[in-house]
Amino acid sequence: MQVKQETTWLGNMKFDALVSGHHVVMDASEAVGGEDSGPRPKELMLASLAGCTGMDVVSILKKMRSEPDKFSIEVVAESTEEHPKHYIKMHIIYKFQGKNLDMEKLKKAVELSQDRYCGVSAAYRKAMELTYEIQVTE
Amino acid sequence: MQVKQETTWLGNMKFDALVSGHHVVMDASEAVGGEDSGPRPKELMLASLAGCTGMDVVSILKKMRSEPDKFSIEVVAESTEEHPKHYIKMHIIYKFQGKNLDMEKLKKAVELSQDRYCGVSAAYRKAMELTYEIQVTE
Repeated sequence: MQVKQETTWLGNMKFDALVSGHHVVMDASEAVGGEDSGPRPKELMLASLAGCTGMDVVSILKKMRSEPDKFSIEVVAESTEEHPKHYIKMHIIYKFQGKNLDMEKLKKAVELSQDRYCGVSAAYRKAMELTYEIQVTE
Repeated sequence: MQVKQETTWLGNMKFDALVSGHHVVMDASEAVGGEDSGPRPKELMLASLAGCTGMDVVSILKKMRSEPDKFSIEVVAESTEEHPKHYIKMHIIYKFQGKNLDMEKLKKAVELSQDRYCGVSAAYRKAMELTYEIQVTE
């Protein structure tokens, strides 16, 4: 299966990426000559991971009739200090909020995403250490 | 060096990622129960790569006083057909437009990004085949 994606330079450090029909503007920080008009491209790697596994988890929990009230995903990434500065570790914190949440179902949903469905996790795991934890609050 | 990123579930298949202070909404297609209100998270991997190497290239070409009139980056990715569906190959097409562009400088800028600066390329190269080509038009 093939996917194509086009990104257009808008001048200076600004780029417009057309992703699944939606425009995402990326820009560098002012410290390195950009205008901070959009996210840093490398940090989009973290959002890509969070969105991918997040969608898996909510769709699995919906099928299990165990949707949380609130759900967020924090990704903590570690980068090398030397060029090329790249991520060598990511830790995903799945944060669920709701009453009477079934920890076993939450664990099952996260495991299914990590082991079977999330293609971003599968790719990143070949390139770096990928770990996760689950946090639940009422 | 550590980076943190938070992504919040907005209901259904919609997520809001806060990336370097900018909101990026991600959503699934209508075919799989989403509302297509933002890009697919996995495809953001391609934009991340294009933006990362694109910013390197334009900043290097600026220092070389060899900026193109127009510049875009196409990424063609190949995915597995089986779960977890993940990218196993990406090909980057650097498309430069301008008069009297110096091919050697363009090549040098692209090589410096690919070999030395682009952290997204460095990470992806550990996980998949990563190739590129340069196209120039007047």
